[in-house]
Amino acid sequence: MAKDFVKRSENYSEWYNELVVRADLAENSSVRGCMVIKPYGYAIWEKMQSVLDNMFKETGHQNAYFPLFIPKSFFEKEAEHVEGFAKECAVVTHHRLTPKRDGTAGLEPDPDARLEEELIVRPTSETIIWDTYKRWIESYRDLPILCNQWANVVRWEMRTRMFLRTAEFLWQEGHTAHATKEEAEQEAQKMLKVYASFAEDYMAMPVLQGVKSPNERFAGAIDTYCIEAMMQDGKALQAGTSHFLGQNFAKAFDVKFLSRENKLEYVWATSWGVSTRLMGALIMSHSDDNGLVLPPKLAPLQVVIIPIFKTEEQLEQINREVEKIQKALQDKGISVKYDARKEYKPGWKFHEYEFKGVPVRITMGARDLQEGKCEIARRDTLEKELTDLNAVVPAVERLLVEIQANLFEKARRFRDENTRKADTWEEFTDILENKGGFISAHWDGTVETEERIKELTKATIRCIPFDSPLEEGRCVLTGKPSRQRVIFAKSY
Amino acid sequence: MAKDFVKRSENYSEWYNELVVRADLAENSSVRGCMVIKPYGYAIWEKMQSVLDNMFKETGHQNAYFPLFIPKSFFEKEAEHVEGFAKECAVVTHHRLTPKRDGTAGLEPDPDARLEEELIVRPTSETIIWDTYKRWIESYRDLPILCNQWANVVRWEMRTRMFLRTAEFLWQEGHTAHATKEEAEQEAQKMLKVYASFAEDYMAMPVLQGVKSPNERFAGAIDTYCIEAMMQDGKALQAGTSHFLGQNFAKAFDVKFLSRENKLEYVWATSWGVSTRLMGALIMSHSDDNGLVLPPKLAPLQVVIIPIFKTEEQLEQINREVEKIQKALQDKGISVKYDARKEYKPGWKFHEYEFKGVPVRITMGARDLQEGKCEIARRDTLEKELTDLNAVVPAVERLLVEIQANLFEKARRFRDENTRKADTWEEFTDILENKGGFISAHWDGTVETEERIKELTKATIRCIPFDSPLEEGRCVLTGKPSRQRVIFAKSY
Repeated sequence: MAKDFVKRSENYSEWYNELVVRADLAENSSVRGCMVIKPYGYAIWEKMQSVLDNMFKETGHQNAYFPLFIPKSFFEKEAEHVEGFAKECAVVTHHRLTPKRDGTAGLEPDPDARLEEELIVRPTSETIIWDTYKRWIESYRDLPILCNQWANVVRWEMRTRMFLRTAEFLWQEGHTAHATKEEAEQEAQKMLKVYASFAEDYMAMPVLQGVKSPNERFAGAIDTYCIEAMMQDGKALQAGTSHFLGQNFAKAFDVKFLSRENKLEYVWATSWGVSTRLMGALIMSHSDDNGLVLPPKLAPLQVVIIPIFKTEEQLEQINREVEKIQKALQDKGISVKYDARKEYKPGWKFHEYEFKGVPVRITMGARDLQEGKCEIARRDTLEKELTDLNAVVPAVERLLVEIQANLFEKARRFRDENTRKADTWEEFTDILENKGGFISAHWDGTVETEERIKELTKATIRCIPFDSPLEEGRCVLTGKPSRQRVIFAKSY
Repeated sequence: MAKDFVKRSENYSEWYNELVVRADLAENSSVRGCMVIKPYGYAIWEKMQSVLDNMFKETGHQNAYFPLFIPKSFFEKEAEHVEGFAKECAVVTHHRLTPKRDGTAGLEPDPDARLEEELIVRPTSETIIWDTYKRWIESYRDLPILCNQWANVVRWEMRTRMFLRTAEFLWQEGHTAHATKEEAEQEAQKMLKVYASFAEDYMAMPVLQGVKSPNERFAGAIDTYCIEAMMQDGKALQAGTSHFLGQNFAKAFDVKFLSRENKLEYVWATSWGVSTRLMGALIMSHSDDNGLVLPPKLAPLQVVIIPIFKTEEQLEQINREVEKIQKALQDKGISVKYDARKEYKPGWKFHEYEFKGVPVRITMGARDLQEGKCEIARRDTLEKELTDLNAVVPAVERLLVEIQANLFEKARRFRDENTRKADTWEEFTDILENKGGFISAHWDGTVETEERIKELTKATIRCIPFDSPLEEGRCVLTGKPSRQRVIFAKSY
């Protein structure tokens, strides 16, 4: 199947695209820029959703659902927001098709069914949600509102790549309303921490946490916090954002509340989201030239058992042994599949599950069984080991924990090794051209310099890390004074 | 809050609309025909989703995700399907907004960004899915494909009502592909049984199972199976449908497979779906003039505990007792909330949770506590009972089971009492005008008669029940011979 699978070192981009398709994660559809998420890919997304949803609920959030369509005029109410989102979008103009009036075959939009006001397929839901919150909020007693929505959104991207940038994508968007600025700021930071925990503890993907420069801010936000991960080609991937929106949307939609002090005040807001883009991040963080590598905590299938036998008698013997092991593993909450299909040879199966990133493979060979043993292979290092049958369950349990930790460690090491300081423009461009990765450098704090650097190198400021220490320095481009290093990189 | 809540007997339709809003289930949005599903309503939907999703997975289905948009030409490929769905739909014609060219403020669709082919926001996904399955299916080894999708869909309904009929709604749609006609037919029937079990065992809503008459069939189906429930006003509500699609979509999208006999054959299909309409069915099946009534298995909150006290000391004593009970109930998997808020009086709380349909209320009064007792009230019958504190947990467990069973029994009795045989046109119209409910009557089997009856009475054939015995009779309208009774009713 994947004999001609391209290597990362040959063509990283092609490697990614092929991996997504061959591992049955997703494929392009007949609709420009829209993908089909296939069952195996969707099963990973469901695992992500389930973990995140629990994390949101544990931090006091509730799910709700708001309309897919946003009236055009809603975008016009928040000046920056319209700049950022209303331009490249799917515009619904008619509510009916009718047979073509020129008599040729086919349908066309019915001119008598033109909408009075065009509807935009939501690219994000701040406007429709704040239009709703206006009805929900009267006094401080109605606050905070802590809602999350799991939904599809559409942004008419010109260049699309499966999971990383698609016209339609799936995401969650949290939208909260607060009585005070402090509470809203804390909420935005709290949710960034939730995202960071999810990325590191479940995706095994180390992330930088920080704040965006003005240029990279969400359209309509006062501050955008983000988590940034490094992919194996050294490029940065923005994996999640959390926005402190100030009172911008409350003002745009006239949402006021009566405070404890009996004063009418505008409500403070946050929004935060992660999307199916995380699938792209997950794939690119760990996978290798043999295919997908999945962290055990998000693998739909954690263990596969494959029998090797010549006679029916041997198979029956293996079946009996597998039944016990399978049951014992499942009792520990581990997902296990026994693939005893006869239409496929063991070698084909080895390859198949390796390519799909199943963390642990147990091979039950008739000969090993005679000696009371079986072989356990781990996907991350491809190492194999003969194990006593009665030690299989603890061995697998230990291995799943080890693989999860190893993937994180490996990614962290890679990230750290590929994060470099640059103090001169020569160093800066040399790293970008010859090494890639993250560059920690001084910046004079102006939008002009940020844009100039982007023009010259395609690198952008990924974030100003929260843990970046104050230190005197000079901007890598202009030489003007700077008090803090920021992280530059080329990015997805 | 709900003192002026309208009674069912006064105005059933207004009762429903008010209930939905006042119980915080949903509200109309600023977008015509689209609702906002509020957190409490969405929590019920999440419970429904979770149960159904497990049922689908247990019957071998996997989730996947297909594009929101469908190219216009896809609808033109299946003649009946286009009749049924492509007419009233949201049509995307542009992918960009631009400042108005006449110089006035605001945005308009950019004429330079007109789509070459219009996109329809999916009203159902058969076409885009069969366009995809064409790429997935080559031989019998690729079959069956058993996919389900949780998604939003849009149908441009002229008259909308929250949950029952909205322009956008949430649903699941299963789409399966099979090598044989028999297997596809069995699948369609199996999924109807899944829906029936869900309706009866979880929603406590008795349903008739049967097949639709040709007039009421899904556009593009060979046979449509359905579950039909009776609401408290005697009207029928179609709660779920499962379609045997034959080879219609395989032919429209040219999807063939190489059979075991090495012959190229068209693939057989089913599709099946339930939607947020089930929320409307749930609400109307059990609720009363005091508000929502929820079956325990789908109630987001099963038990609420309310303290009654005068002194802080009493409250502390109650708190200690509640902590034990709450923990013990939660250990049994029962969801419990302790509402000790001081801003609200016990009477307000009683009313609030009663209106929201919480199945069981425990009142912890300081005086009862002295005697080692507390009061348990059930929402379905409004009965109250003093119970020994050490017997609370088993009492609540028993009560939740009893309420679930009682709601089903009550609804079944109501349905059966309001199902009547009619053998003449006078009986038929008399029942419709004066009693309502389901009518079991003979029908001559023609579309003409079905349509004529609808014109004359607004009643339609809800289904031909699977368990309807063969019996000789004469059509209630035309007097022509018939071999089986069918169920007529006015419907939602």
